[in-house]
Amino acid sequence: MDSLDEKKELAVRWFQELQNQICDECTAIEDEGVPEDSEQDGLSALPAGSFQEKNWNREGGGGGRMRVMNGRIFEKVGVNTSVVHGEFSEEFRASIPGASENGKFWAAGISVVVHPQNPFVPAAHMNTRYIVTSKSWFGGGGDLTPIRPAVRESKKFHADLKQVCDKYNKEYYSKYKKWCDEYFYLKHRDEPRGAGGIFFDSLNSGDWDTDFEFTKDVGRTFKDSYANIVRATKDSSWSGADREFQEIRRGRYVEFNLLYDRGTLFGLKTGGNIEAILMSLPPRVRWP
Amino acid sequence: MDSLDEKKELAVRWFQELQNQICDECTAIEDEGVPEDSEQDGLSALPAGSFQEKNWNREGGGGGRMRVMNGRIFEKVGVNTSVVHGEFSEEFRASIPGASENGKFWAAGISVVVHPQNPFVPAAHMNTRYIVTSKSWFGGGGDLTPIRPAVRESKKFHADLKQVCDKYNKEYYSKYKKWCDEYFYLKHRDEPRGAGGIFFDSLNSGDWDTDFEFTKDVGRTFKDSYANIVRATKDSSWSGADREFQEIRRGRYVEFNLLYDRGTLFGLKTGGNIEAILMSLPPRVRWP
Repeated sequence: MDSLDEKKELAVRWFQELQNQICDECTAIEDEGVPEDSEQDGLSALPAGSFQEKNWNREGGGGGRMRVMNGRIFEKVGVNTSVVHGEFSEEFRASIPGASENGKFWAAGISVVVHPQNPFVPAAHMNTRYIVTSKSWFGGGGDLTPIRPAVRESKKFHADLKQVCDKYNKEYYSKYKKWCDEYFYLKHRDEPRGAGGIFFDSLNSGDWDTDFEFTKDVGRTFKDSYANIVRATKDSSWSGADREFQEIRRGRYVEFNLLYDRGTLFGLKTGGNIEAILMSLPPRVRWP
Repeated sequence: MDSLDEKKELAVRWFQELQNQICDECTAIEDEGVPEDSEQDGLSALPAGSFQEKNWNREGGGGGRMRVMNGRIFEKVGVNTSVVHGEFSEEFRASIPGASENGKFWAAGISVVVHPQNPFVPAAHMNTRYIVTSKSWFGGGGDLTPIRPAVRESKKFHADLKQVCDKYNKEYYSKYKKWCDEYFYLKHRDEPRGAGGIFFDSLNSGDWDTDFEFTKDVGRTFKDSYANIVRATKDSSWSGADREFQEIRRGRYVEFNLLYDRGTLFGLKTGGNIEAILMSLPPRVRWP
């Protein structure tokens, strides 16, 4: 059991370590390339993409490290970490646990969004964070957004998440799966955003070390499980119609993030880094 | 001076008449075609587009007539009219003039959004409406969103709008121009959506006939002024880089409509027709 400052440091160090691991994994997959017949967008002629890094500072305090790759397998993948601190405006204090007194907060996290070129490779999202006000907690989750049906992949993804949840608490998986299903839902279209995953927030069991270990495990499991899914699907052949369908489905992703996603709306309202926040939006989208 | 029912009928008849006129004008321009060198997307090989009509019914009462064309000049143009009535939920009553007592409303309007193929043809939007609660009023406006600088066209558009405003009230143009500038503003990016135009709401001067005539004149002026702009710019030659820039700028349009546009958010929250509401979103968009 460490002091609060030590906990913050451990959390930050982990998010940055995970950022490195995920970028390395994506780079390795990107280097493996695409099959010769991936000619629809001339992909097989493209060199492997690489991550571009950009650091940004937040006016109110703190900043982030943004890494984006536009590649031949990963049309757009963003892997961001940030460590920010400051004071919530009056407007937000009431809605944030432990912030009603003075509004002071500290938050660190990692956020990953993947939009693959191949419509048969599911898009994916993962985020974990550690937040400190007068209270402190972990939050996060990971979810899959297949474009074309990916029943086997979605099942395996859920099985992997269930396994990691079960290691910590037999109730976590069903609770966090439900939370994810409810959260990633497009009310105006009455449809889910994708195949779900897990979503958790306000996690503070009283045992910091275990909560931290769980949060780390969720990140690692996402990385490994999703890497397997990408490798299992990236050589699928696809048509122009699949691609068009993908770009239309991506419109739902945009609608969700701009209409409902709390992190996005919160970031935009509190003067966050626009580029880092909107990194989640898909590279090419259609509303025909 | 007619009864309220007669006023509603006159308004509806006008919005539908204007819908026809705008569709006819767009179809005429679409038939004029594009120059031989518009090869970037194979546009000159495409036949002229034509409007597809879809009627929809609203669960709470009323419905609409949606017309969309995907063409070689107009990549996507939507011209919708609707006549709806019902009761606002408790949630909305407080924010709507004259609705606090019983929440009953009746509303009719026309909404036009144009996303041209050629990046040198400005995108455009126009909407006018007549709303009846225990009060009644007109609202609407028109604005231009150039992708590449269109200084001359924007000036002429504003001059045309000023001319129609000045016919009715010397204060309208400056007041409604300012309202438009303030409304079509992306706070999170600290940038305007486009070159502006006019925006008015709650217009009830006490002289219904004159307010109605003004509203009609705004619609007609938009149609004529924008048609001139399209004809003046549609033959400009453009590069792949212009096109890419256009698709990126269109992202701002999406961000505005999903984050801020009152009509969009209101429609989505009150069970409006999703397809008609999101008709405004551009056909192809990039967030690189």
